Amino acid sequence: MKNSALSALGQRTTEPPISWLMHAALSRPKLISLAAGFTDNASLPVAEARTALNRVLRSPKTGQPALQYGITAGDTALRQLTAAHLRKLDFQAVVSSSFSSSSLGLELKSRTRTKDEDEKTYSPERLLISSGSQQLLYLTAEALCNEGDIVLVEDPTYFVFLGILQSRGLRARAVRLERDGLDLAHLEKVLTSLKRRGELRRVKMLYLVSYFQNPTGVTTSFQKKCGLLKLLKKFERATGHPIYLLEDAAYRGLRFAGNDVPSALAVPGAAERVIYTSTYSKPFATGVRVGYGILPKPLFTAVKHIKGNHDFGTSNLLQHLVAHALASGIYGRHVARLQKRYAHKARVMKQAIKKHFPPAVEWWEPEGGLYFWARLPHGLPTGMKSKVFSTALKNDVLYVPGEICYADDATRRKPNHEMRISFGNASEENVREGIKRLGKVLRKFL
Amino acid sequence: MKNSALSALGQRTTEPPISWLMHAALSRPKLISLAAGFTDNASLPVAEARTALNRVLRSPKTGQPALQYGITAGDTALRQLTAAHLRKLDFQAVVSSSFSSSSLGLELKSRTRTKDEDEKTYSPERLLISSGSQQLLYLTAEALCNEGDIVLVEDPTYFVFLGILQSRGLRARAVRLERDGLDLAHLEKVLTSLKRRGELRRVKMLYLVSYFQNPTGVTTSFQKKCGLLKLLKKFERATGHPIYLLEDAAYRGLRFAGNDVPSALAVPGAAERVIYTSTYSKPFATGVRVGYGILPKPLFTAVKHIKGNHDFGTSNLLQHLVAHALASGIYGRHVARLQKRYAHKARVMKQAIKKHFPPAVEWWEPEGGLYFWARLPHGLPTGMKSKVFSTALKNDVLYVPGEICYADDATRRKPNHEMRISFGNASEENVREGIKRLGKVLRKFL
Repeated sequence: MKNSALSALGQRTTEPPISWLMHAALSRPKLISLAAGFTDNASLPVAEARTALNRVLRSPKTGQPALQYGITAGDTALRQLTAAHLRKLDFQAVVSSSFSSSSLGLELKSRTRTKDEDEKTYSPERLLISSGSQQLLYLTAEALCNEGDIVLVEDPTYFVFLGILQSRGLRARAVRLERDGLDLAHLEKVLTSLKRRGELRRVKMLYLVSYFQNPTGVTTSFQKKCGLLKLLKKFERATGHPIYLLEDAAYRGLRFAGNDVPSALAVPGAAERVIYTSTYSKPFATGVRVGYGILPKPLFTAVKHIKGNHDFGTSNLLQHLVAHALASGIYGRHVARLQKRYAHKARVMKQAIKKHFPPAVEWWEPEGGLYFWARLPHGLPTGMKSKVFSTALKNDVLYVPGEICYADDATRRKPNHEMRISFGNASEENVREGIKRLGKVLRKFL
Repeated sequence: MKNSALSALGQRTTEPPISWLMHAALSRPKLISLAAGFTDNASLPVAEARTALNRVLRSPKTGQPALQYGITAGDTALRQLTAAHLRKLDFQAVVSSSFSSSSLGLELKSRTRTKDEDEKTYSPERLLISSGSQQLLYLTAEALCNEGDIVLVEDPTYFVFLGILQSRGLRARAVRLERDGLDLAHLEKVLTSLKRRGELRRVKMLYLVSYFQNPTGVTTSFQKKCGLLKLLKKFERATGHPIYLLEDAAYRGLRFAGNDVPSALAVPGAAERVIYTSTYSKPFATGVRVGYGILPKPLFTAVKHIKGNHDFGTSNLLQHLVAHALASGIYGRHVARLQKRYAHKARVMKQAIKKHFPPAVEWWEPEGGLYFWARLPHGLPTGMKSKVFSTALKNDVLYVPGEICYADDATRRKPNHEMRISFGNASEENVREGIKRLGKVLRKFL
């Protein structure tokens, strides 16, 4: 008898690499983890959540709907608030963005005045509430991709998404990443090569972590969003079906420097090709799992039905909590405080990196989110089995090895000399001390 | 260009039939719905949830962990409480059950004294917290079944589970249901026929809604649990892999008459073949989506990893809420009140049925849960396109047509002359009035 009755998917799905890192962190109490993507414990809105929940549950009239089943797509009030919030965010980003005097900027500004299209794009009817935006990434992959289908990803990208692809038997094709987003020339090259090999019809979407990307901290410029959508549209003709852009904006709310960038939904004429996902969990509380997405209609319907099979809809209590926090201003005030806090911690990390890292290390500073990205000279690996990693662990400091963020893509060699360094979870003091330790380790090798 | 890029799964997944019923309910304000499986609004524990949340969020020390990410398998305290609760429940059920003086009963009683096996069976290490037990049904199907695999189901069964099978391209084979659970002779016949046709290796599990089944209200006796596990074991030899029993005990906490029945976990030697799922949502608050399952180890690991890809774990805030409600007694007191309330509403429904239904209608009374089951004489269909259904709707009363609870299984004709009638959501007065209206409709046809 074989060991198990597991499905192909069940057999493929493996422990995420990050689990090992988390175990390592737990077994060394003095270890400073610059690996975790957690938010800062001390910043969590305990009193604010209590206040909001007391209001939601103040009477049977307000409390009962929060404790009852809702509809699969999500709470109507929260969907309206979210859609309106997103529309406003994109409008402001268009108005304030640096390209506002360019021809694209002018086109966009005039466009924001055509209310009809905007109302359609940011309609609550196209908006779905999920258990964190993670769930929407999974549901989208389910709704779009058959085994063997191809998903284009940034190189590197969010490793849990790579885990979804691996588990579901999907193929990733990696597109080079530059400081302002995807390398469009490389995207065109990849698509052309897929077309030549007759594989374009297997391409279902491009996955983009567009704000303060996990792991590199890179933010995709609006020009690049326009450019990549144009390219997808061009190649779409040869596929027989749409190629979607899955824009994962999970970190958008955590900007602490620079100007917001409009989402791909604001690209003229693109709304029917953009799946935009984001979350309230990261900016508010990661223990409150409420994410959301705006989806083109046929996909919205499929995702909603699949979610019905998963869970009938996200907890109404959590949705009412978030809706109250949004409507009352609790949410906005908290996010403003959090942005300041992260701005400060990012400055602390930057100063420490400047002081302690050897000059041969290249590093990228983000305008938001939780991550710095560092690149050692080639030939000096940072992976879990590398000397750099084991020495860091011996010196009680942990980072995420860059290599786990790279897709399995045989068309290029997987880089293995980078690291993701997070200022999210560690205290200010530990950020300083952690970088000092890491710098000491790096100086040993450089 | 084709209409969409949807996957086979995305294309297969359809709107659940119940959605149409819910829309119908919303569009007729005077309609009394005996269709909804919702719990009773007035019974929802608004004050209790507020108290528990105020305690969870009383200080940063207790509140921060509730607002932070947890681990995928679930909160340790909740897993321990749940495992201990379940072990106690099964122990008490074994001791108090009606077969306690039989040889099986004696065997079980002696068995409950072998602590080692019990500790293994009910170990928190095998217990996973999910977003309602619904999510575990989905995850289990993902982890076990490839497209085309076969799942044995009760005939009729929970229609959302049938939706999962349909969406995932799985085949259901239906096994006849008797008043005390599956018809074991028919189960053997089905398995034999599958074996003869060389399809036994496609059989991955048997799905059983074991307490106050949705839709029939039937509770599976412990003797039948023993018998069906023996049968599965016997046929397993020809499959090359385990055939699991997925025991869905979602309604177990809602017993209001008779004695509890031990779960299949209590069947001697069966723990490695039983997936037991249940939920805190139905007995406490359906807006608080917290379910759980005990799984054999290889399956536990696969399901945990897949859940990691879905959502990294269920909301910690909800888990801490439930853990506090359990530990403080809030949960137990609420469930006791709810049982009394449902006992009363079930009595009201029974009396109304006795008074208003024509004698040709056969009906089953449950010992718990939310549903009565009624069977009209053959030849009188109850489906959504039937005269009975449209007349009921015209008379402002709604039921769930039995036919949607039957799997697509070409080996038998789908019964279409039954109805599920729920006393869960309607008020006492509406239960009375709803049954009166329904009786009037039935008398027109009988």
